[in-house]
Amino acid sequence: MSDHICSAGCTHSSHLNDADLQGEFAEARRSLRASIGGKPTTGAAGKAGVTQRPLPSKKAGENFSHYYVPANDKTVHWGYFSKSIEPLLKVESGDYATIETVTHHSNDDFDRMIKGDPGAESIFHWDAKGKNIDRRGMGPMDHPLGAGGGMGVHVCTGPIFINGAEPGDVLEVRCIDTMQRPSGNPEFHGKTFGINAAANWGFQYNNLITEPKTREVVTVYEVDAKGDHTSAKAVYNYRWTPQTDPFGVVHPIIDYPGVPVDHSTIQKNYDVLKGYEIPVRPHFGLIGVAPAEVEMASSNPPSYTGGNFDNWRMGRGATAFFPVSVKGAMFTVGDPHASQGDAELCGTAIECSLTGLFQFILHKKADLPGTKLYDLDYPLLETESELIVHGFSCPNYLKEFANSADPVAEVCSRASLNTAMTDAFNKTRRFFMNTRNLSEDEAISLISVSVDFGITQVVDGNWGVHAIIKKSIFPK
Amino acid sequence: MSDHICSAGCTHSSHLNDADLQGEFAEARRSLRASIGGKPTTGAAGKAGVTQRPLPSKKAGENFSHYYVPANDKTVHWGYFSKSIEPLLKVESGDYATIETVTHHSNDDFDRMIKGDPGAESIFHWDAKGKNIDRRGMGPMDHPLGAGGGMGVHVCTGPIFINGAEPGDVLEVRCIDTMQRPSGNPEFHGKTFGINAAANWGFQYNNLITEPKTREVVTVYEVDAKGDHTSAKAVYNYRWTPQTDPFGVVHPIIDYPGVPVDHSTIQKNYDVLKGYEIPVRPHFGLIGVAPAEVEMASSNPPSYTGGNFDNWRMGRGATAFFPVSVKGAMFTVGDPHASQGDAELCGTAIECSLTGLFQFILHKKADLPGTKLYDLDYPLLETESELIVHGFSCPNYLKEFANSADPVAEVCSRASLNTAMTDAFNKTRRFFMNTRNLSEDEAISLISVSVDFGITQVVDGNWGVHAIIKKSIFPK
Repeated sequence: MSDHICSAGCTHSSHLNDADLQGEFAEARRSLRASIGGKPTTGAAGKAGVTQRPLPSKKAGENFSHYYVPANDKTVHWGYFSKSIEPLLKVESGDYATIETVTHHSNDDFDRMIKGDPGAESIFHWDAKGKNIDRRGMGPMDHPLGAGGGMGVHVCTGPIFINGAEPGDVLEVRCIDTMQRPSGNPEFHGKTFGINAAANWGFQYNNLITEPKTREVVTVYEVDAKGDHTSAKAVYNYRWTPQTDPFGVVHPIIDYPGVPVDHSTIQKNYDVLKGYEIPVRPHFGLIGVAPAEVEMASSNPPSYTGGNFDNWRMGRGATAFFPVSVKGAMFTVGDPHASQGDAELCGTAIECSLTGLFQFILHKKADLPGTKLYDLDYPLLETESELIVHGFSCPNYLKEFANSADPVAEVCSRASLNTAMTDAFNKTRRFFMNTRNLSEDEAISLISVSVDFGITQVVDGNWGVHAIIKKSIFPK
Repeated sequence: MSDHICSAGCTHSSHLNDADLQGEFAEARRSLRASIGGKPTTGAAGKAGVTQRPLPSKKAGENFSHYYVPANDKTVHWGYFSKSIEPLLKVESGDYATIETVTHHSNDDFDRMIKGDPGAESIFHWDAKGKNIDRRGMGPMDHPLGAGGGMGVHVCTGPIFINGAEPGDVLEVRCIDTMQRPSGNPEFHGKTFGINAAANWGFQYNNLITEPKTREVVTVYEVDAKGDHTSAKAVYNYRWTPQTDPFGVVHPIIDYPGVPVDHSTIQKNYDVLKGYEIPVRPHFGLIGVAPAEVEMASSNPPSYTGGNFDNWRMGRGATAFFPVSVKGAMFTVGDPHASQGDAELCGTAIECSLTGLFQFILHKKADLPGTKLYDLDYPLLETESELIVHGFSCPNYLKEFANSADPVAEVCSRASLNTAMTDAFNKTRRFFMNTRNLSEDEAISLISVSVDFGITQVVDGNWGVHAIIKKSIFPK
């Protein structure tokens, strides 16, 4: 591995035409986890099935690797970010990783989304004797709902330590490709499924107009597993009924992640959205780095380090930039989605396991002035044609409510699109003033006539408004 | 003229390939107001320069007309909707009209945007002896700021009476084409200009970070006058200074529309947004029909009958649908924009006079069940690929605050994206349930996984959130 650290202007050699890299990702596309020719990494991570393969050097001083990170009970943590988790692997700036992610809603349909998939089976294993992954969320281990209390729900793959990353740096993460995870059950060979749950944390929950006025509804979608921009169709739906977990705890609502749904207790309705086709735009709802402020942060509210910001634009071809908050950055990804509308209204997208191919580029603090990454204290996305600034009701709730006994409850109680809009405006103005040297008057006029503000999500506690800056406006 | 009234399924003959229709619009493109071969309509409207020309009949029973409606002091009303204004002309369902609209910000740069343009000159004429258009806004005629009090600011062309339209019907307005209005001043031959004002009603006004903390800024843009999808560039900007109008009233802020700005009192800064190019997306910020609830409604807050809803998608190729509230619908259009971002953050777009070619189609109430127009009580937009539902902080503030002394102050005091989001959700759910026969569970899942919610505007008193439904989701 190299000790090369990118400067902000660095364009790494691209390995995208590397036949082996393509081949390895294609292998991931064909099977859940076949050997891809890499050798196990050393230490604990190696035991979890993480492999490494050197990539052919294209440029003097560059010796990059491609890692493969399967999702299993040893490579994921559930419901939280933490700077203190032992990293799965350590990578250099410029390295690639193919990373499997698994949706926390898989147990809403065990047969379609877990059965026959060894990785998913190991993650969700739970019987009267125990769970493979006990902690789910940042809550206490003796929480009455279950260990961790479901205070944070997402199955997160990682963390990945980026060598050389220090607080104040910026981590660039390029999403080179995505693939849906096929069902491991021979009965559903070649198919992929996803879950949409209209849940108690959804925007609609206290505003239903048909009876029963209090209900949660799970809709199972079939997603085309072969392409990336095809469609998803509803298969059936059911209303959540009280579920008793293997430890005997009853869950009258969806209040703890990964509870196996006993399909003998539900009524399946196959007459659902007949003929409707949802355009698929695969993306990662949760992606980011660990915050310095706390030992353990719920995975639910997004924050300045990214996390669960739920922007559907975070898919193939998109690049995310995160302010590094702790040594090594501690990159984590999860909450895979096949599709989501801006707002993610009912609380979830089509929650669908995905594998992503990523490249990591580290930008050192000293190299940031004069670049678009200067003064970055929020997750910034870049697509081929756009830069996307993310505003939140509370820009950094962990700092703002550091003295509170329950920062998550504090941020949830303040959820508002009005404050998220103000934050998105403040950040966008700062972006133009600090990285483009515009006056405030110039920035404000430019924003009003050319920047589109959209509603990222209204369901993650810390609500989001994003600002879309078209790159075509910039001087050529 | 025909007595043909469209049913909801009716597709009128298109005259878009009619050489004369194209020729007349092209004529409008070349000059401000040349004779286009039509004959003056009779009555008062005829005197205002409105002309009519029969279109060749393509189908038995159809005899449509193309009207040309210039903008001048006789064809516009300023700052309000009213069911009681004498209509400019009466059209049949199926008729076309080329309609000139003039921005109310023209006097921010008289030389570029009024001088040499007889229509604009007649609208803005104001000297110590009087104004051609005295009332500007729905306020009292003896308001200290000026007649009408500037309670409503937009120069509105219309109203147009649609024969046969009754409350409960839906008026479809197809925007077939748009053109920018060229400067009438020989010094700026072939050029078009627009104004962006970062004004006191903007989202930024109480949140400025550089000195002086209280200021309004006018930025003058040059807009390519030839094409529709080209770019705009800033020419110069200036900070608003107290302006004394011809009646001697001092305007320390932008508090009354059409006040001539004395350029000897301002400091022009030409070092503004050098090299930045704003994509032009010409559209009408204000378009709609008259509400039944009041004699006179401010043109500022949008409502269920449309009006100033400020969606940049309302341009060429878009179709708007409005619930008819009064006999004849009383269609009005204005507030032309060269470009705007979703949010219209600083209070204005690039305010730029435009001419539009429209076709009117009337859908009778009895024909609405089973169509997308059933139960419509808000402005619905349709583009080639999308249907766009408009939510507001207050869906119908004129009804909601009917007993208030000042309904506009009431709605402004309640401006919130949170309530606008709820309204957009409620309407979108109703749309799917009532026009597509989906269950509430189906509607909510579909919305969450496929509908994008955006921020239309945060500056018009009644804030807007729109929901974008992709037409590709519907069963084929």
